[in-house]
Amino acid sequence: MPSQLEGAMDAMIKVFYNYSGNDGDKYKLNKGELKELLTSELTDFLTSQKDPLLVEKIMNDLDSNKDNEVDFNEFVVLVAALTVACNDFFQEQQKLKSK
Amino acid sequence: MPSQLEGAMDAMIKVFYNYSGNDGDKYKLNKGELKELLTSELTDFLTSQKDPLLVEKIMNDLDSNKDNEVDFNEFVVLVAALTVACNDFFQEQQKLKSK
Repeated sequence: MPSQLEGAMDAMIKVFYNYSGNDGDKYKLNKGELKELLTSELTDFLTSQKDPLLVEKIMNDLDSNKDNEVDFNEFVVLVAALTVACNDFFQEQQKLKSK
Repeated sequence: MPSQLEGAMDAMIKVFYNYSGNDGDKYKLNKGELKELLTSELTDFLTSQKDPLLVEKIMNDLDSNKDNEVDFNEFVVLVAALTVACNDFFQEQQKLKSK
């Protein structure tokens, strides 16, 4: 049985291919696939943000070479950044509570 | 219910605090805690590697400021790098198969 951390790594890979395989290069997300991934997998995060252009901005940030494709390595950077942001929020709350 | 990707992000945070809270600063992993995390959570990965100094090397790489502590952001870098390595291997296998 995989550990909790191995399960998390496996889930990141699976989620990526669930969306990247729909259209065009199956190892890359095009803009439509990325948008679908973000709206389906990060619904709570997206609805909590008030910026209606957020999805567009994330796409532009990740697609650094402007080929309208996001590969797995670029996707992991996004997941890592979001996880660090979640953790910063969590730590702040914990520290406020313990004051 | 969280999505698969939210579950993965949540698992990374939980795994970190499962080990960081044991000893000293509860928001950081000391060398002993990091070693415990790696051996418990990445057993298959560690046993597949033939390098007996691998855990030591990972510790030294992550602990860039040499304070014997690894914070959450440094931990996420490790998880991201390992996930990218797993995915590279997976893609290579897929491409060989389709030849």
